[in-house]
Amino acid sequence: MTTNRVVGFPVRGVISVLAAVLSLAFLPAPAQSDPLPSWNDSATKQAIVAFVQKVTDKAGKDYVPPEDRIATFDNDGTLWVEQPMYTQLAFALDRVKALAPEHPEWKDQQPFKAALEGDMKALAASGEQGLVELVMATHAGMSPAEFQTIVGDWLATAKDARFKRGYTHLVYQPMLELLSYLRDNGFTTYIVSGGGIEFLRNFSEPVYGIPPAQVVGSSIKTKYELVDGKPTLIRLPEVDFVDDKDGKPVGINAHIGQRPIAAFGNSDGDYQMLDWTTAGKGPRFGLIVHHTDAEREYAYDRDSSFGRLDKALDDAPDKGWVVVDMKNDWKQVFPPEQ
Amino acid sequence: MTTNRVVGFPVRGVISVLAAVLSLAFLPAPAQSDPLPSWNDSATKQAIVAFVQKVTDKAGKDYVPPEDRIATFDNDGTLWVEQPMYTQLAFALDRVKALAPEHPEWKDQQPFKAALEGDMKALAASGEQGLVELVMATHAGMSPAEFQTIVGDWLATAKDARFKRGYTHLVYQPMLELLSYLRDNGFTTYIVSGGGIEFLRNFSEPVYGIPPAQVVGSSIKTKYELVDGKPTLIRLPEVDFVDDKDGKPVGINAHIGQRPIAAFGNSDGDYQMLDWTTAGKGPRFGLIVHHTDAEREYAYDRDSSFGRLDKALDDAPDKGWVVVDMKNDWKQVFPPEQ
Repeated sequence: MTTNRVVGFPVRGVISVLAAVLSLAFLPAPAQSDPLPSWNDSATKQAIVAFVQKVTDKAGKDYVPPEDRIATFDNDGTLWVEQPMYTQLAFALDRVKALAPEHPEWKDQQPFKAALEGDMKALAASGEQGLVELVMATHAGMSPAEFQTIVGDWLATAKDARFKRGYTHLVYQPMLELLSYLRDNGFTTYIVSGGGIEFLRNFSEPVYGIPPAQVVGSSIKTKYELVDGKPTLIRLPEVDFVDDKDGKPVGINAHIGQRPIAAFGNSDGDYQMLDWTTAGKGPRFGLIVHHTDAEREYAYDRDSSFGRLDKALDDAPDKGWVVVDMKNDWKQVFPPEQ
Repeated sequence: MTTNRVVGFPVRGVISVLAAVLSLAFLPAPAQSDPLPSWNDSATKQAIVAFVQKVTDKAGKDYVPPEDRIATFDNDGTLWVEQPMYTQLAFALDRVKALAPEHPEWKDQQPFKAALEGDMKALAASGEQGLVELVMATHAGMSPAEFQTIVGDWLATAKDARFKRGYTHLVYQPMLELLSYLRDNGFTTYIVSGGGIEFLRNFSEPVYGIPPAQVVGSSIKTKYELVDGKPTLIRLPEVDFVDDKDGKPVGINAHIGQRPIAAFGNSDGDYQMLDWTTAGKGPRFGLIVHHTDAEREYAYDRDSSFGRLDKALDDAPDKGWVVVDMKNDWKQVFPPEQ
């Protein structure tokens, strides 16, 4: 206030002039550009925009302060492709191949034999236990930072067979726009994935704009120890937490400590997250990405081994969850090729 | 850019005039106010300021981008008083009294008998197992939201016997200033406490400016279930994670996913957090609050049952950790009485 008093009226005068000039200057600017250009102007897009407008309208009855604007996103099938298999499984299979020279016993031992031979049928037959064994053999024994380097090196070179693209280029352009749109409107966006938390943290910031602390995922145990006197974290071959189904609300509570007001998923693994989110008081939003586009991406739901969508699809109308029809709601599926 | 072209030079001209006028206007303003007014101008304060200046100096070799400016703070004894006992233990003892009518068996059963009779010696004799039993009996069986309401109701009325103040008014004013100073300089501040994560989340935002997602603490297990068809989280009487000693780096990695560049503690329970933080590459900062002020607060270290500071005090010089001498470094301990 002292500073104003020294110069007094003149400052305010100049500010008024500037404001007038600037408002003139901005008049010819184009109408505010569409924040969701890859979404067709369908009921789905309208529902998203209507929700964001009502929770950010300070004068409205549905206003939600920014600190409560928490939005959680599943990753596989919601933000990036999960067919023909989860990307993290493709990573694990490649790691088995890379590590095989150190493990001659693997060529006669399931599920490693199946992984090495690319025998997906035998791999599927090894069940959940087989997958856990693959993950433990390939994801443990190093620090989280070393693990992320391994993931980063793999993501930099591995390519999806059908699309001939790196996996971080098989993210959904409409969902990237949605993440930005929500953040631009004061939301904090989180990933809440059944995938591994440290796997996701390698790329969540550059690809989705989501920093490591805003990633919730499945985890293996980590131990602190001194190695040659140096404080070190080591990843252990032991499951710590499974962030899927019932685990999603539990993981959200542990990491975020608040119930989201919006949740985005694509499979029955997201059912409890959607249900818990939208059962809260006040304005809520639940959305399911339904893969209906065999041509541009994939078409699957009730019978898929990855991203099975059955009960959540049945219950969506009653629960008020918006279902994205990928084929008709999305103008474009992937970001333009670089 | 179009907008500039429409008006062209005039906008820049007015801006230049305004800038000139404003710079004049601000000249008579007082020198930038001290962000740490409750700290005496000692070597400790100088070390803090020097660290913040060097990591925020874009031209310097020690510059750290804002996304890596992670600072972690212990709570008990670092941000608020932990004598004559941890505040959460005082809460648990009061909860035992409040719940005793529903548990007539407690009056003959340790550690509840000791808690009800205020027999601290018998309570101490019950050991860690006794404390765990008290916590399980008083902290589980409700949703995290319900638990936080119970904590909030208690904090609103309970008072410390010596200072005749509510516990959230027994926070350290110099540390509140330090939290704000770091945040004003682009740091993200986290609590990393051996205390319960949901206990802390009740007050971390209003008292410390730290939102629920930036609290790391010990936890009991939580289960998701439908209660009368309503999605619900229930706190279970089962230890999930102990965020103390070795657990602190593990908890930081799980929640934040990055190694901090600065850590603040006061006891041997913070040793591993300090060690892991300051062992990283680049500029690092470790600080220990040494309680040396029996008159204004408490004086304790090597022999205290709460907040024992022994090995960390011995190793601080070698490790380069700054030790706060509360009596001489702090002008003021608590915020002014309201």
